[in-house]
Amino acid sequence: MTADLALHGVVPPLVTPLTATGEVDRASLERLVEFQLAAGVDGVFLGGSSGEVALLDTAQRRAIVEVAVGTVAGAVPVLAGAVDTGTRRVIEHARQAAALGADAVVVTAPFYVRPHPAEIVEHFRLVQAALPCPVVAYDIPGAVGARLVPDLVAELAETKLVVALKDSSGDLATFREIRRRAPDLPALTGSELLADTAVALGAAGIVPGLGNVDPHGYVRLYRAARDGDLATAAAEQDRLARLFGIVDIADRGRIGFTAGALGAFKAALALRGVIDHPATNPPLLPLDRAETGAIRRILTDAGLG
Amino acid sequence: MTADLALHGVVPPLVTPLTATGEVDRASLERLVEFQLAAGVDGVFLGGSSGEVALLDTAQRRAIVEVAVGTVAGAVPVLAGAVDTGTRRVIEHARQAAALGADAVVVTAPFYVRPHPAEIVEHFRLVQAALPCPVVAYDIPGAVGARLVPDLVAELAETKLVVALKDSSGDLATFREIRRRAPDLPALTGSELLADTAVALGAAGIVPGLGNVDPHGYVRLYRAARDGDLATAAAEQDRLARLFGIVDIADRGRIGFTAGALGAFKAALALRGVIDHPATNPPLLPLDRAETGAIRRILTDAGLG
Amino acid sequence: MTADLALHGVVPPLVTPLTATGEVDRASLERLVEFQLAAGVDGVFLGGSSGEVALLDTAQRRAIVEVAVGTVAGAVPVLAGAVDTGTRRVIEHARQAAALGADAVVVTAPFYVRPHPAEIVEHFRLVQAALPCPVVAYDIPGAVGARLVPDLVAELAETKLVVALKDSSGDLATFREIRRRAPDLPALTGSELLADTAVALGAAGIVPGLGNVDPHGYVRLYRAARDGDLATAAAEQDRLARLFGIVDIADRGRIGFTAGALGAFKAALALRGVIDHPATNPPLLPLDRAETGAIRRILTDAGLG
Amino acid sequence: MTADLALHGVVPPLVTPLTATGEVDRASLERLVEFQLAAGVDGVFLGGSSGEVALLDTAQRRAIVEVAVGTVAGAVPVLAGAVDTGTRRVIEHARQAAALGADAVVVTAPFYVRPHPAEIVEHFRLVQAALPCPVVAYDIPGAVGARLVPDLVAELAETKLVVALKDSSGDLATFREIRRRAPDLPALTGSELLADTAVALGAAGIVPGLGNVDPHGYVRLYRAARDGDLATAAAEQDRLARLFGIVDIADRGRIGFTAGALGAFKAALALRGVIDHPATNPPLLPLDRAETGAIRRILTDAGLG
Repeated sequence: MTADLALHGVVPPLVTPLTATGEVDRASLERLVEFQLAAGVDGVFLGGSSGEVALLDTAQRRAIVEVAVGTVAGAVPVLAGAVDTGTRRVIEHARQAAALGADAVVVTAPFYVRPHPAEIVEHFRLVQAALPCPVVAYDIPGAVGARLVPDLVAELAETKLVVALKDSSGDLATFREIRRRAPDLPALTGSELLADTAVALGAAGIVPGLGNVDPHGYVRLYRAARDGDLATAAAEQDRLARLFGIVDIADRGRIGFTAGALGAFKAALALRGVIDHPATNPPLLPLDRAETGAIRRILTDAGLG
Repeated sequence: MTADLALHGVVPPLVTPLTATGEVDRASLERLVEFQLAAGVDGVFLGGSSGEVALLDTAQRRAIVEVAVGTVAGAVPVLAGAVDTGTRRVIEHARQAAALGADAVVVTAPFYVRPHPAEIVEHFRLVQAALPCPVVAYDIPGAVGARLVPDLVAELAETKLVVALKDSSGDLATFREIRRRAPDLPALTGSELLADTAVALGAAGIVPGLGNVDPHGYVRLYRAARDGDLATAAAEQDRLARLFGIVDIADRGRIGFTAGALGAFKAALALRGVIDHPATNPPLLPLDRAETGAIRRILTDAGLG
Repeated sequence: MTADLALHGVVPPLVTPLTATGEVDRASLERLVEFQLAAGVDGVFLGGSSGEVALLDTAQRRAIVEVAVGTVAGAVPVLAGAVDTGTRRVIEHARQAAALGADAVVVTAPFYVRPHPAEIVEHFRLVQAALPCPVVAYDIPGAVGARLVPDLVAELAETKLVVALKDSSGDLATFREIRRRAPDLPALTGSELLADTAVALGAAGIVPGLGNVDPHGYVRLYRAARDGDLATAAAEQDRLARLFGIVDIADRGRIGFTAGALGAFKAALALRGVIDHPATNPPLLPLDRAETGAIRRILTDAGLG
Repeated sequence: MTADLALHGVVPPLVTPLTATGEVDRASLERLVEFQLAAGVDGVFLGGSSGEVALLDTAQRRAIVEVAVGTVAGAVPVLAGAVDTGTRRVIEHARQAAALGADAVVVTAPFYVRPHPAEIVEHFRLVQAALPCPVVAYDIPGAVGARLVPDLVAELAETKLVVALKDSSGDLATFREIRRRAPDLPALTGSELLADTAVALGAAGIVPGLGNVDPHGYVRLYRAARDGDLATAAAEQDRLARLFGIVDIADRGRIGFTAGALGAFKAALALRGVIDHPATNPPLLPLDRAETGAIRRILTDAGLG
């Protein structure tokens, strides 16, 4: 099975819907997965940054993979984030996800500690060796500090330690260098705003947090870009860039960047009727009524009202 | 009991000795704890940054607190790090530590996510509410990004959410402001190099990673500084500053900063016969023979050979 | 005249050739300008980052604009950098450049000081009011710290304080937002590695430092991208990306990033016979013989040997 | 003369008073210098960061040194900042200052460019060789990015390229290491908040921007700390730390950090009747009436009303 995993297309990093008491809202998550599948996505990614991976406890991490694996029922690959500071911690998360049926786990560089590139390779070597499923490398320097530089990604690709790269660096020049250095490694972009460009530059797929809210838009964008219709892709990208304005609505004097962005995705999904509650995990603070109203207006302007 | 916890003095953040197969080396840890107690420390801190907290798995975290609580046997307070990215994860760690007998848990700002100061307060509020033992706030921006700014610490102190601050920011100007803003909150410095100065400025105690290697030196330094003998304290500090050169021995072209520093502490403890093996958790790479030799020479120069 | 300035196409930021005694090598600069014009560039930019603007004294700044204006003789626009920390300093530089015949001056955000966006706008307002020629805004956060964010650029465009933007941020997502916010403002990219993509996304032109070495390549790239032949543009971009490897040859343990990059451009131009000496201004240290040999090999591989 | 320059004591970095039309207000600057001398300072520093050095044009830089040299009339050393991005630029500034009678020039690491430590040494070597007066090294990473690390300072001291260090890094651990590595090099701190501690740790003097406003306070602090009366010094330091609150009054949503801090120094000096106008150079925006009122209240609370 794992040998056949060929990641491509639209693979949204799903939010983690919560109940009023803070547990995983399984019914809402099922609806979200079905909403995504109906839109034509090519995979789903549970426990990514948009899924509040850094804020989930053990039971929540278990629940989201269980629900996703059950709901997807093999239709597309299910990816699970195993995001933690050190190798042993990551292996704990990753083994649980694999045991629950995830098709691959997604792993960042170690953080809190300050690793050398050789130690990042060692991290992936040990994680891969401990798992029955393939590993996707996740470059997200804004969260973990370290970069997965081209030399390092090329080494991970050549030694078959990872089967794909998710690039959330925002750095397209490096993305292109990685494409030149490791042309056979599927590379997916985490960018909401450069998705069409990344596909035009050879990205195998896209992993946009905003895809939670408008998977149909990103599916149209991806297919147009993949098929070489860059004008259509760019027009869709422009519309989605305006929709992405929802992440800037929250008052940064009151709540943090992460709370504003993830809260906006959930507020939009609740407004669209896909999930029941917009609640986020602690310590993120909620959007207020005025902010939610502003998000509603942006949805309407984007044709999703 | 917890109401009486008055943190002060020398509270070294103990390394986590490992066996050749990578498990916690309980015998070595017992010897390390006894070595510290014999030197006159006023507390021990398990699972801090020097204890590789970011690299420990669940079983390792359990083992180190078990061993420390058992060996200390109530002689001094046992602190346990509950360092993780989000509130629910931290509560999982902290409850385990409290159940094992830790006298207090040590908690940083959330990381990976980008919290607003109000969300950091919310984090401490929820962690404190979930625990039977007191919480120590841990300011370590080099590892987690966010600062515990004076306004925030003053709020944590006034609302009794924390019983002490461990300041590893290296920023003495802010330390003094916190002392003015929250004079009743015991503040401990994590600095190896400014320990005497911090005590002269009102620090209740010191938490030096290098205290693993030379607890006698830091006990002498602390007591001299506490008693107003700044010249003696400064002379001891200068000697310890030279000893701290062990953290800069490793070749940064080959291994990372964390590997070099924590590896040096463990190599020195092994050379001194306190622990059996200098091994660190993955993905940290080991010091080589020449580096270990250089550490041996520094130990000798510091009178610890 | 200035009303007609419509910046577009390839506008290389020329290096500043020096004689063995450290003065501007006017004969080499003339040859460099002629080499660029013969390759078909659409403008030249003197005193940019590649021109060592931060290292030039008053006489050198005067010399480079004199030579360029004289050699270009009106064939294409001549841009001059007026890069300094504060408004009054910038006006001194900019007036000199305008008096010498520069068609426009290129101005960054203030630095050393830490400006608010409103103060950056004030800076451009005062500079523009003091000059007889138009101003180009230069976003180079890697050198000056501050960003020219989309709101700010939109305000500069609406109030006609600048006639174009040179974007050396490397951030294509923001570049696209600026294109949406200020669609009538010509935007040029400073990226060597994303030039084709930037043109495809609406860049009016490109300002690649590597264009010193291979202007023919960037002219081909620009024209192909402008005409919608993205495959040809991308193939040229890939070749130029390999050539750009010359900036990574220098040993970073011995000389700095700027010395390595600007030294490589000059070494390549000397190897190609365009300028006489590869010397850079102090305090930059020179490449050594082995590094120059490695640059020669890369030139050969790129078909420029 | 220069061989005898032994920098020590209180050497405030003077603000640059401006007239309503933006020129140097010579009468106000004379009064400021006399105010400082009457308070007992041991030197004055013109054209430092507090003197808006990054915002001064050529005529302003000339005027401030002329006025200071004339007013001081040899009573204490006059230092002049020669702060710019590159070696040749710095030499231009420094020669002008020396010709006007400055006793020493104060020089930072190069900036805008990204220098290697060896290039920073080269910078100081060339500047020193070009000047008839001694050079003071100025470590201010918050403004220029690069650090003057201990190895580098030790090399500058051993080779006699500089006669003193002004440390505005805020990093006392490194300050102490420099004291160990170069014990004969006078080191002055630029910290407003750790002045007593720095003197206790061996600083030869202090260069506090807030000394513009309350030189008497810093003279008392310095003399107490120098004479070993740390309690008196600390009490003065605490009072001055509260006074330093004036730099945080300005609304950071409206004007920048530099504008808020330097504007506060000037507003306080105008309120105290020392200078005529609180104006700062462009592009800094002014404090408003409410902010000035808040500064007045802090002055009153500090006994300076």
